[in-house]
Amino acid sequence: MSFDPSSLIYNDAGLVPCIAQEEESGEVLMMAWMNASAVAKTLASGNVTYWSRSRQSFWVKGESSGHVQKLVELRLDCDRDCLLAIVRQTGPACHTNRRSCFYTSIDDGEEVELMRPLV
Amino acid sequence: MSFDPSSLIYNDAGLVPCIAQEEESGEVLMMAWMNASAVAKTLASGNVTYWSRSRQSFWVKGESSGHVQKLVELRLDCDRDCLLAIVRQTGPACHTNRRSCFYTSIDDGEEVELMRPLV
Repeated sequence: MSFDPSSLIYNDAGLVPCIAQEEESGEVLMMAWMNASAVAKTLASGNVTYWSRSRQSFWVKGESSGHVQKLVELRLDCDRDCLLAIVRQTGPACHTNRRSCFYTSIDDGEEVELMRPLV
Repeated sequence: MSFDPSSLIYNDAGLVPCIAQEEESGEVLMMAWMNASAVAKTLASGNVTYWSRSRQSFWVKGESSGHVQKLVELRLDCDRDCLLAIVRQTGPACHTNRRSCFYTSIDDGEEVELMRPLV
């Protein structure tokens, strides 16, 4: 079956969440949002492209920072309302300069920092 | 710093997305939603508990199917608006009886089924 980005289920803002996972390590790096055009751009360019809700514009990951995400594979879930991008991440994925955005763990009711910013 | 579920950033419906990842394999299993009470229940019980948007009720994963998710670790992201649950999944995570909900890949514009339902 041929894939049509408009066949995904978008929220009221026209967005679908996309999880980025590092191909080699399997680490979950981040979650951000795409609209149908960002999905199409990601597939066409091979550069993971989100929709920035704060800036209301396309966000080619790493375009300014150099911390690009090269698309290895894009998957969709059973409900067609969530995407999983398998990527090769250059540098840190997080804007805090950490490898992953999920650097805080909840341990016995306390927030624990799992990783430090890369230097 | 002690963790307070109310310190997360919820959407207009009072929900935050939670990604479930299998501890051993690193496989991303599914994404579903939690409200603050579901976050608290998950941490208190060790059984991953979502909020079902369709049923508008708590959804203790596997309560009816037996396909429970035991919480290994709960993480939050830099923006405090997404959770990552590292879990031990019993049986398939997906309601289609597949190991993961992300069983469809987009390959050269075609949808490809990556895994079959478990029997």
